[in-house]
Amino acid sequence: MRHLLSIDDLDADDLHRLLELTDHMMEISSRPIPKVPALRGKNVVSLFFEDSTRTRTSFDTAAKRLSADTMNFSVSSSSVSKGESLRDTIETIAAMGVDAFVVRHRSSGAPQMITRWTNASIINAGDGWHQHPTQALLDCYTIRTGLNRRDGFDGLRIAIVGDIKHSRVARSDVQAFAALGAHVTVVAPPTLLPPSLDGWPVEVSHDLDSLLPDLDVLYLLRVQRERMEEALLPSLHEYSLLYGLTDARAARLAPHALVMHPGPMNRGVEMVADPGELSGSVILNQVTNGVAVRMAVLFWLLGSGTDLTEAP
Amino acid sequence: MRHLLSIDDLDADDLHRLLELTDHMMEISSRPIPKVPALRGKNVVSLFFEDSTRTRTSFDTAAKRLSADTMNFSVSSSSVSKGESLRDTIETIAAMGVDAFVVRHRSSGAPQMITRWTNASIINAGDGWHQHPTQALLDCYTIRTGLNRRDGFDGLRIAIVGDIKHSRVARSDVQAFAALGAHVTVVAPPTLLPPSLDGWPVEVSHDLDSLLPDLDVLYLLRVQRERMEEALLPSLHEYSLLYGLTDARAARLAPHALVMHPGPMNRGVEMVADPGELSGSVILNQVTNGVAVRMAVLFWLLGSGTDLTEAP
Amino acid sequence: MRHLLSIDDLDADDLHRLLELTDHMMEISSRPIPKVPALRGKNVVSLFFEDSTRTRTSFDTAAKRLSADTMNFSVSSSSVSKGESLRDTIETIAAMGVDAFVVRHRSSGAPQMITRWTNASIINAGDGWHQHPTQALLDCYTIRTGLNRRDGFDGLRIAIVGDIKHSRVARSDVQAFAALGAHVTVVAPPTLLPPSLDGWPVEVSHDLDSLLPDLDVLYLLRVQRERMEEALLPSLHEYSLLYGLTDARAARLAPHALVMHPGPMNRGVEMVADPGELSGSVILNQVTNGVAVRMAVLFWLLGSGTDLTEAP
Repeated sequence: MRHLLSIDDLDADDLHRLLELTDHMMEISSRPIPKVPALRGKNVVSLFFEDSTRTRTSFDTAAKRLSADTMNFSVSSSSVSKGESLRDTIETIAAMGVDAFVVRHRSSGAPQMITRWTNASIINAGDGWHQHPTQALLDCYTIRTGLNRRDGFDGLRIAIVGDIKHSRVARSDVQAFAALGAHVTVVAPPTLLPPSLDGWPVEVSHDLDSLLPDLDVLYLLRVQRERMEEALLPSLHEYSLLYGLTDARAARLAPHALVMHPGPMNRGVEMVADPGELSGSVILNQVTNGVAVRMAVLFWLLGSGTDLTEAP
Repeated sequence: MRHLLSIDDLDADDLHRLLELTDHMMEISSRPIPKVPALRGKNVVSLFFEDSTRTRTSFDTAAKRLSADTMNFSVSSSSVSKGESLRDTIETIAAMGVDAFVVRHRSSGAPQMITRWTNASIINAGDGWHQHPTQALLDCYTIRTGLNRRDGFDGLRIAIVGDIKHSRVARSDVQAFAALGAHVTVVAPPTLLPPSLDGWPVEVSHDLDSLLPDLDVLYLLRVQRERMEEALLPSLHEYSLLYGLTDARAARLAPHALVMHPGPMNRGVEMVADPGELSGSVILNQVTNGVAVRMAVLFWLLGSGTDLTEAP
Repeated sequence: MRHLLSIDDLDADDLHRLLELTDHMMEISSRPIPKVPALRGKNVVSLFFEDSTRTRTSFDTAAKRLSADTMNFSVSSSSVSKGESLRDTIETIAAMGVDAFVVRHRSSGAPQMITRWTNASIINAGDGWHQHPTQALLDCYTIRTGLNRRDGFDGLRIAIVGDIKHSRVARSDVQAFAALGAHVTVVAPPTLLPPSLDGWPVEVSHDLDSLLPDLDVLYLLRVQRERMEEALLPSLHEYSLLYGLTDARAARLAPHALVMHPGPMNRGVEMVADPGELSGSVILNQVTNGVAVRMAVLFWLLGSGTDLTEAP
């Protein structure tokens, strides 16, 4: 595997292997000096055409724990603002010596397109409404450890709630959860569902409340405030009434059920309860696991021939 | 000690110990390769909600000399601009694995508040009008070495001149200088003094000129131009006439007296003379000492169990 | 040599020695772990008063391959925006411990001026219309390897095409190419030539087409779109007709001839053909070589007493 562009690139065996590799990365991350020399001399470049401190920092931290060098580009400070083409930008940076590009772009397919212009590995860190594969991997890892499901998600009932239509997180999560055997329901107002769900391995519901008692995982998506301006949402208040996680809804979840969110949360909208008071919240575990999952992905793509157990 | 939030957190013994530790850090900084592995694997995150290249760079340099990893966040590029709460931002970054946050914030008390949300050490790098403790430590170190006062400041006469009311530097410096035994006078127009100086271990003067010959240290504060718009200052010119360090005033200082400024200077306002021509100016020493003081603070908070003399 | 401000600072022997040192740096850059400890503990600060991701990244990568520490300042985030003088900014940063400043500034002569205020080495990374010496060195290295001319450029015919008047690249390249023995022609509309070319070791032409068959190197400069607003260029289309590299013009080049561009390219203006399809294009080699040349310059200025062959 040279790139990670989509959860489609991974079969169930790949998913399991990446999640097992993540176990090793969690162990490394828990050491007093959480560093191994595995990727020393490798150059990992973040190329973010959309702002995301959270994801960029997670990849950056992951790369440093593996002793890779890192560089960050954001659109505003790059030559792209001088009218240079995306292709020229990629080829120029690559010519300085790059082993992997971590790419976020508002256009679906941009990371795929970039693979044509460089020999470096491309990791999709979110492209348009399309895919966000490392988010799906960290979500799988969080469920796997949170519910002690090392062998797969057979029989797990997962609801993903919110703006399915515009969410790359939903697309990647649905594929990954289903590939591992989970039963996934997407819950949204009709305006926030894709025109067709043909080929999505999901059920659809508009009624969160009836699902709650049977869920193993409640996954809340972030509400994008701009959807209201587009008249896809009547009001944040009404959204919150129908789909927000209130204390009353939280009380109806099974005691073992996990509450997840990709962040950043809109408190008072999709997250009305205080997540710090929800016994099932693993939202901060998702963040911690995100670093380890990204270490696993970087090592998987760049670490051939090196040994994770090599002394520093 | 887990945090450094205020000079109040330190008694005179702590101050002396930190200044002695700074001596070691100055020695390390003078080596051909000014680096020790003391904090290898520690992650120091700068979280600056107000811009300050100077202070951020000083901490960054200090952390690198101790072999810590560093990451920088500024408000504009963080999720805070997406409406995420400060608490969620802190908890999210902390979940990636942070040993210390270096925080600058326009609100007094923000660093204190942050200690509730994370187990990481918090270092206050300036909060509102409240405190800037590492500035006070570097100022103490500069006086200690500049006047050869390793045992304390008993009998030293220090004047702090300028906008006392809105200055966190003044608050921290007054406490630290007094704790070490100095006699401190604050000099300002009445509009730039706090409504009450109850509890401040200082004398007040509106007449800089009469103090000059007796001073051991003349400490100039930066004039904030926005104070004029608030009608707290009649004009920069008038301020300069009454409180600016002119060549004439410099000539009336004792030969051994130090001239200090936290930077950046307003030349022609509080600093009329050319500081490069003032024999007593230790303004650039303050900058150099700032790196060593911040190394000492980072090692004090994060270095337990490690040995400064360990080979690289 | 303490600084690199201008190609004037280098005689032909210096140029040859730097290009030979670049050979070593290319070898280091080709290793699986492209790093040597030569500049460990050295602090290299980029100070860019004009935006340039490309050049800044190239220096940054070069410094990291030599194990130097790096810091980046850009105007917008520095105290310069608070009204601090350039001199105070330089002296303050230098006081934190800086071994070299890499400076880009819109004013010709700014890097030279800065040498007065600090003991650090200054490397000019582009000043106004004046000089861009590391660009000239990487261009020389690219020609030297691309045409196998290790002993000099005697008899080579090089045309530099475009906005000679406002180009620091043209000024530095003309000096360096000529010092190595090349025969240089500058090709431009009269409005984009300097008022006088006295002292330039060049011929002038307004007719690119007649030169093409005899060239060993065709060097295209970037068209600055703002020159049209200044009425120095009638239109991009007309520029392209007369001076752009079209497929037809490319077909008239000798088979061995190199096509070069300092980037970023304006496709469809000075570069009409697809550079990926031009057999003589060494534009991406220029980028790759740029890192190695900057490693050589950094080592030349800061590496005295250290040994490139030292084990990591």
